[in-house]
Amino acid sequence: MITDRKVILYISMSLDGYIATKDNSLDFLSMVEQEGEDYGYNAFVKSVDAVIIGRKTYEKVIAMGYEYPHTEKDVYILTRTATPSIGNFKFYTDDLSQLVAHLKSQQGKNIYCDGGAEIANELMKNNLVDEFIISVIPILLGDGIKLFNDGRPELKLELLSTKQFDKGLAQLHYKRADK
Amino acid sequence: MITDRKVILYISMSLDGYIATKDNSLDFLSMVEQEGEDYGYNAFVKSVDAVIIGRKTYEKVIAMGYEYPHTEKDVYILTRTATPSIGNFKFYTDDLSQLVAHLKSQQGKNIYCDGGAEIANELMKNNLVDEFIISVIPILLGDGIKLFNDGRPELKLELLSTKQFDKGLAQLHYKRADK
Repeated sequence: MITDRKVILYISMSLDGYIATKDNSLDFLSMVEQEGEDYGYNAFVKSVDAVIIGRKTYEKVIAMGYEYPHTEKDVYILTRTATPSIGNFKFYTDDLSQLVAHLKSQQGKNIYCDGGAEIANELMKNNLVDEFIISVIPILLGDGIKLFNDGRPELKLELLSTKQFDKGLAQLHYKRADK
Repeated sequence: MITDRKVILYISMSLDGYIATKDNSLDFLSMVEQEGEDYGYNAFVKSVDAVIIGRKTYEKVIAMGYEYPHTEKDVYILTRTATPSIGNFKFYTDDLSQLVAHLKSQQGKNIYCDGGAEIANELMKNNLVDEFIISVIPILLGDGIKLFNDGRPELKLELLSTKQFDKGLAQLHYKRADK
């Protein structure tokens, strides 16, 4: 059985396509911080019940002194090193395509890809992203870690919405055109 | 004297940041062609009276069987090879920053950077772009010629507008935040 669960890449990038600086800093995101404005994040998070995240990105959150949220969701942390689960957080060492196929064979809400670039590109290489919600931060970083690496297949998209916010964030929501 | 003439980069890119495919094809732009919809191009063109374009991009237009438009504007074709002018079209071999300084010292309308990536990046490296009007085409090309190369300075922007069109084009208009 294949359900209609969708894999959604929900991510921020600078206008020039970087998700972080070269030294992995996300400080530029603070320029769009605004009291009472979450750019749709909480509503989005309620629409998903599984999360896929790369090990480096996961550890980056922890290193910043946060607990990784989504404790009530099925969280899959992609890693090459077998690691015991922590509560709902499963360290996943197998093939990413198989994980997506497995999740899509089960009923549930949508599936959130929380980055980083490595996992996002692996998903895109295998044409496994169904929707893209991209928050464009009003800055040219000039250098850094790119969201989109070369060597992916072409994919036509359908623009679902554009939203413009006071702090200059532009949020673009696409779905793949072939579904 | 420095006038308030602005250098505007007006360009299309795929969502993943490419202005053309690897083999220099622009065929993907046809997906947003729509009778009677020019995405603001004619109004924009009326707001400029000088054009800066790279030699390769200029020749690409010619090779596609078009005449290069803008015959009533001052067109500067950036090249490393001294070439005689053709009417208003000047082949410019000197420093790009000097050209911009020269144009900004004279009264006139705005200055249109018509690409390609090499000229756009050279302008950005020298912090010479005042506004960005970027039409995001609803496609992931997967590979190609990037609009934004690594190794530019950071530049904070102010989002002036976002526009969403029927065919899925999202047009983002920014100006530099420091001016």
